Amino acid sequence: SQKSIAAIPGDGIGQEVVPEGRRVLQAVSQKHGIDLEFADFDFASADYYQAHGTMLPEDWFDSLRGFDAIFFGAVGWPDVVPDHVSLWGSLLQFRRSFDQYINLRPCRLLPGVKSPLSGYGPGDVDFYVVRENTEGEYSSIGGKMFEGTDREIVVQETVMTRTGVDRVLKFAFDLARSRPNQHLTSATKSNGISITMPYWDERVKVMSEGYPDVVWDQFHIDILTANFVLKPNNFDVVVASNLFGDILSDLGPACTGTIGVAPSANINPEGSFPSLFEPVHGSAPDIAGQGIANPIGQIWSGAMMLDHLGETGASTDVLEAIESVLSSGDASVLTPDLGGRGTTSSLGEAIASTIVSQ
Amino acid sequence: SQKSIAAIPGDGIGQEVVPEGRRVLQAVSQKHGIDLEFADFDFASADYYQAHGTMLPEDWFDSLRGFDAIFFGAVGWPDVVPDHVSLWGSLLQFRRSFDQYINLRPCRLLPGVKSPLSGYGPGDVDFYVVRENTEGEYSSIGGKMFEGTDREIVVQETVMTRTGVDRVLKFAFDLARSRPNQHLTSATKSNGISITMPYWDERVKVMSEGYPDVVWDQFHIDILTANFVLKPNNFDVVVASNLFGDILSDLGPACTGTIGVAPSANINPEGSFPSLFEPVHGSAPDIAGQGIANPIGQIWSGAMMLDHLGETGASTDVLEAIESVLSSGDASVLTPDLGGRGTTSSLGEAIASTIVSQ
Ligand SMILES: CC(C)[C@H](C(=O)O)[C@@H](O)C(=O)O
Ligand SMILES: CC(C)[C@H](C(=O)O)[C@@H](O)C(=O)O
Repeated sequence: SQKSIAAIPGDGIGQEVVPEGRRVLQAVSQKHGIDLEFADFDFASADYYQAHGTMLPEDWFDSLRGFDAIFFGAVGWPDVVPDHVSLWGSLLQFRRSFDQYINLRPCRLLPGVKSPLSGYGPGDVDFYVVRENTEGEYSSIGGKMFEGTDREIVVQETVMTRTGVDRVLKFAFDLARSRPNQHLTSATKSNGISITMPYWDERVKVMSEGYPDVVWDQFHIDILTANFVLKPNNFDVVVASNLFGDILSDLGPACTGTIGVAPSANINPEGSFPSLFEPVHGSAPDIAGQGIANPIGQIWSGAMMLDHLGETGASTDVLEAIESVLSSGDASVLTPDLGGRGTTSSLGEAIASTIVSQ
Repeated sequence: SQKSIAAIPGDGIGQEVVPEGRRVLQAVSQKHGIDLEFADFDFASADYYQAHGTMLPEDWFDSLRGFDAIFFGAVGWPDVVPDHVSLWGSLLQFRRSFDQYINLRPCRLLPGVKSPLSGYGPGDVDFYVVRENTEGEYSSIGGKMFEGTDREIVVQETVMTRTGVDRVLKFAFDLARSRPNQHLTSATKSNGISITMPYWDERVKVMSEGYPDVVWDQFHIDILTANFVLKPNNFDVVVASNLFGDILSDLGPACTGTIGVAPSANINPEGSFPSLFEPVHGSAPDIAGQGIANPIGQIWSGAMMLDHLGETGASTDVLEAIESVLSSGDASVLTPDLGGRGTTSSLGEAIASTIVSQ
């Protein structure tokens, strides 16, 4: 059956890595007889903003909601539009409007990728960050008072709902249950953030009662970031609020070598709306336009998309091809961040042709 | 002239490391002819809470405000009193009531301490985290609604004031100006936290105009934690909100080996109230009572206290003694977290006697 995919490359290196993601998806679809149909969208970009004065057209919701998934690059080009305007006007809007309340981000030490931490090899680090993706610290309630005076004050509300907290905890506990170690870690800060975080802890405790088979613990976010560095092999599934999950899902990939390879899935588990798949990295203005961005985060996000669409065989094929190309250590295809002298395309091409010949 | 110090060991390993801190302070004071007078307080502890039902006596403010400084261990014993109750009832109360609006935390790779990051040696990493310490995400405004129902909702306000933001920025820019690299990094998250963090950025920009000699940049907190791991030698002075500073000042010390050696100073720069000196680590229930806690975080906090009291020579002496004992690699005095088989006392004693014989 046909699957329709909305492709939104966005800004900067998003424009460079999305084509490589599509190249690999095309190769693996052909091999597995999957019918992927892509539609291209130019909104959610600084170019679109410059032409229209908004990040999205008025009918964006209806244009996108019928797709089976959204394949997203990166958004953000602060020279043209401030980040909070571009992000709240696109990506953060998608997450909330399409109720993609799970942001799932694997952290895995891959072969051929050098970890900045000494003493760990491929396979030693392998965990998921499950991030709440629609509420919490990313709130739109708040404002400014006594503007422009010495008494100026700015407030912003963190908002947690029982529905919002429980559903991400349930997803995380289910995921932990499905894994060999059945271990869940909750990120908190209930000693300092004294209203919302104790509530988070309370709901974790209630949820855990339905999962006697899952071993769980909790750490305050400060010492948890320290433990990501000191004991990265201690984690299996880490569940966190929107902000804490954001932090941990950049730190985790950094501990496994480079955020250039890290993928993410913004999931609406009920399938009421399309889910969105994007690399963890941003638009990277500093290296944009040079053709040297690592496309693996985007390609791996494509594998997560295939998985979500039920194409697990194809998804596994993509992951195996990524690992095989990384293991080869072939400097002529690998991008500079991986120690090579290849380009975005040479790396995408190598992965695509590995799939064909696998 | 006499300096009066309030000693508050608190809970867990606080009880074990404060005596070692005092031993070292005694030794260095004797050597430099400094007259330090200690007074002991048993409040701000779970024991006190069990006996009195509160963390502090009613007159705590008046009892403490006349001291020149507070030498603090650690507080928190969740089996007896929930962390947010014990912390808001003591440490966080002190910080706010004594307007200790600067939390200064050095991160330095010391000789003899193994960093989990490969490729860095002593001297390569040497920066300060300057944390806002009285407002921001650590707020007491918020609450719960529709309690106990499916519609349950919890909110908590982040509050930033111009006064609060500007004064910590000023301190950080001044500190950056005084250092060889004159480099300041601001921690933000203005792409996601769209009201308070853009305000923070705005104030950084305004403040920077008074410091043309300081080179500054800003990173979103997610990628900043990644950069602590990937490029720890890129930092000089990092200024951050209360929560972000809390995170960065645990992560930084983890990147330099162990949070057991990390000190902190909660400073009221105007001297209207006593400042408070405490290790970054907590009460560590898991190792409390075994006599194996590393006292260096506490001892180094003592050095920061001497510095604050104007005794810079004595402060330098303590730091040199710490480095010398660490460099010795003497496993019989070093604590287990440093790879030794010594105890809290053996390490404190070694540092004290090094000072005497220096
Ligand atoms: C114990 C806790 C409330 C405290 C904080 O978050 O400030 C601690 O982590 C610290 O860094 O001093
Ligand atoms: C770009 C930014 C708003 C976004 C976030 O904070 O969610 C990004 O960091 C991410 O992790 O997807």
